[in-house]
Amino acid sequence: MTTSHHSIVELIERKRDGGELSAQELEWLVREFTADRLPDYQMAPLLMAIFFAGMTPDELAPWTEAMLRSGEVLDLSGVTAPKIDKHSTGGVGDKVSIPLAPMVAACGVAIPMVSGRGLGHTGGTLDKLESIPGFRTAIEPGDFASLLGRTGLVFAGQTETLVPADKRIYALRDTTGTVPSVPLIASSIMSKKLAEDLDGLVLDVKVGWGAFMRDESSARRLAATMVSIGKAHGTPTIALLTDMNQPLGREVGNASEIRESLAVLRGDGPADVNEVTFRLGIEMLRLGGLAGGRTEARERLERSIASGAALDVFARVIEAQGGDPRIVDDESLLPSPAHVWELTATREGIVTECDPLGIGNAVVRLGGGRERKEDVVDPAVGVTVLAKVGDHVSPGQPLALVGYNHEAQLDNAREVLESAWVVSDGPAPSRPLIIGEVR
Amino acid sequence: MTTSHHSIVELIERKRDGGELSAQELEWLVREFTADRLPDYQMAPLLMAIFFAGMTPDELAPWTEAMLRSGEVLDLSGVTAPKIDKHSTGGVGDKVSIPLAPMVAACGVAIPMVSGRGLGHTGGTLDKLESIPGFRTAIEPGDFASLLGRTGLVFAGQTETLVPADKRIYALRDTTGTVPSVPLIASSIMSKKLAEDLDGLVLDVKVGWGAFMRDESSARRLAATMVSIGKAHGTPTIALLTDMNQPLGREVGNASEIRESLAVLRGDGPADVNEVTFRLGIEMLRLGGLAGGRTEARERLERSIASGAALDVFARVIEAQGGDPRIVDDESLLPSPAHVWELTATREGIVTECDPLGIGNAVVRLGGGRERKEDVVDPAVGVTVLAKVGDHVSPGQPLALVGYNHEAQLDNAREVLESAWVVSDGPAPSRPLIIGEVR
Repeated sequence: MTTSHHSIVELIERKRDGGELSAQELEWLVREFTADRLPDYQMAPLLMAIFFAGMTPDELAPWTEAMLRSGEVLDLSGVTAPKIDKHSTGGVGDKVSIPLAPMVAACGVAIPMVSGRGLGHTGGTLDKLESIPGFRTAIEPGDFASLLGRTGLVFAGQTETLVPADKRIYALRDTTGTVPSVPLIASSIMSKKLAEDLDGLVLDVKVGWGAFMRDESSARRLAATMVSIGKAHGTPTIALLTDMNQPLGREVGNASEIRESLAVLRGDGPADVNEVTFRLGIEMLRLGGLAGGRTEARERLERSIASGAALDVFARVIEAQGGDPRIVDDESLLPSPAHVWELTATREGIVTECDPLGIGNAVVRLGGGRERKEDVVDPAVGVTVLAKVGDHVSPGQPLALVGYNHEAQLDNAREVLESAWVVSDGPAPSRPLIIGEVR
Repeated sequence: MTTSHHSIVELIERKRDGGELSAQELEWLVREFTADRLPDYQMAPLLMAIFFAGMTPDELAPWTEAMLRSGEVLDLSGVTAPKIDKHSTGGVGDKVSIPLAPMVAACGVAIPMVSGRGLGHTGGTLDKLESIPGFRTAIEPGDFASLLGRTGLVFAGQTETLVPADKRIYALRDTTGTVPSVPLIASSIMSKKLAEDLDGLVLDVKVGWGAFMRDESSARRLAATMVSIGKAHGTPTIALLTDMNQPLGREVGNASEIRESLAVLRGDGPADVNEVTFRLGIEMLRLGGLAGGRTEARERLERSIASGAALDVFARVIEAQGGDPRIVDDESLLPSPAHVWELTATREGIVTECDPLGIGNAVVRLGGGRERKEDVVDPAVGVTVLAKVGDHVSPGQPLALVGYNHEAQLDNAREVLESAWVVSDGPAPSRPLIIGEVR
């Protein structure tokens, strides 16, 4: 396998014209690009050709495999528990990973969860966790196995050594208009997740106005693509499609989403967060071989809450990662905003829209999210959604509580917030929360 | 018009998604790229997006305009004769420019012809002319007007200062799989031709196996695109579509095509070369306002030959550009191959195929063309096509004479040549030489 046998121009042309690249050619491309021997100006048009021409399953498997082998891969062979992870394509108010992982870990699954930070209107699990005083998410690959063995759950950020090919390719996509490509998104996500040395993976593909995939058919295509990559790698993978046409739960913001996560762990969470959390948890337990049927899996998850075991796991993980575990019992230790402003309804009617994109962007404007990667996040600010789609409201009734620290940031966010809710004579659209699944 | 108003990623995304770029945005792109302020890794995916999404006439006009204004533009305002040029998209045995330009110049048109070199199976006008001992094609833009005033015709190569944007963009296309895009081809050709300060332009778009455009519909699309760019610039432009499913004329090779061109100028050329030359010449004279109808134009061209005026112009141009004008009367002054090998028919029948691509590639293998830009061309070698499509041949009858200088090169070319002719029971395909026109 020598580099001289491949002509990059010929590979670009073949992909451009709808042809297929071989496993060997794709491995060569990823390897040469990661090693800086293939210039950006040739990788970028190849990525654009992939945007238009797509990738076949036979191409995606070796491409993803080459990406995940481009750096260090976690070695969790010493962990005896089944290793199952969950990934969400991102939404507004989507804190599901935070209560889900302790629940599932309490049932005997090991969860080596490597997550990302928030960018734009979607929040990130790491940012939310870091609102817990002291919590560290920078875990070296070498420390992963022992930490996982101790607590059954690690919440980690990406390191420089995990899947460097994805970092390189993503940075190029970001500056060349090649981000929204289903095969490129799928291989980016799956290369990182499969580098976690998993026995199974559950995906939550968000669909709707507040999600990356706005329509069901493209979400289903992304889900099917990721599931097929997982299977080709030998890692059983299941995807749920869930609604993201309004925020999930009531809290949007970093510390406030930790509070809502604690509510779920106490059996006290909002119905929609509970439903998504339980559905994903059931799939994780079944993939891990820890429950035969759905009913058994649901009962185990319910017991993890009723017994306090899930909350205990969360407290232990917080402590193991340097955070203050007392937040579990004393939420006042979490950051709070200095001021709260109330957004109220101006007419009587039915909430027919509660725009997750607007609310997510408002939180960014309040300082609680990032416009650019280098922005610093204010963990205290956020929006508490009081009226959701289908709710009846009267004039003057609060639609949301907006926690803020700086008047200028509130001013900046108000306009977006005021147009995020639509109150009309109705009826409200009726949308299922769990739209479908791909397995 | 400041650069900060344009986000290159947003422009790439818009083009990718089928949107239109404004004149101002396109001018900005060409200017920034030519000035090295826009990196290759962002221009290349934009070009790939153009490959897939195309360009509208409203985009192509300012894009081409920005390209042609990227460097020096010829100032031929001192030349009183109408300035008309001709361009061919390239074929095998296509020496038409060489007899055509002196014929039309002899009728009073000024022709500031900037041409290219051969690459791959198609020959180049400059290479053919440089087989004339002493002939120089490196003409500085500053010398153009006086030379043109003196002879009515300049055969020049491209300089560094003419249309630098095209050089930059073409070099990038060549290494990024973005060459065969109709709008990019059309803007590349037209930016160079319109920089010649023309009053009119005639295009010969070759169609067929030996041409860049293999089918009529894509050739017609290219022709229409170029004509619309010419019109938008205010330069009347006409395109003919002509057949390139077999070599044009009998000679394929540099010096031998000069010999065949001289035959045309003496009224002694092959019928197909004559027909294409006259049809293009008629359009050039009419565009130049030197003939009302086609009959009048044809008669003027015939007189330029019968009177010897066209041959005289050619001799004067050769002399003005440093060449030996005696070749016009004494063809033995042109390079000749050391050896000639005869390719003969192995069966009786009708020639149903005389593959221009194979013959063009054979001449490259004989040393008469370029595989890479830096290759040196042997002017003496070539193929004389004796049997063309529709001809009846007997076993042992020569199909072609192959002039060569080195045995190894002949060996290299033989296999390609032997499969270039197909002799069968027929019938031969009947194809018009002049397929159509776009005006």
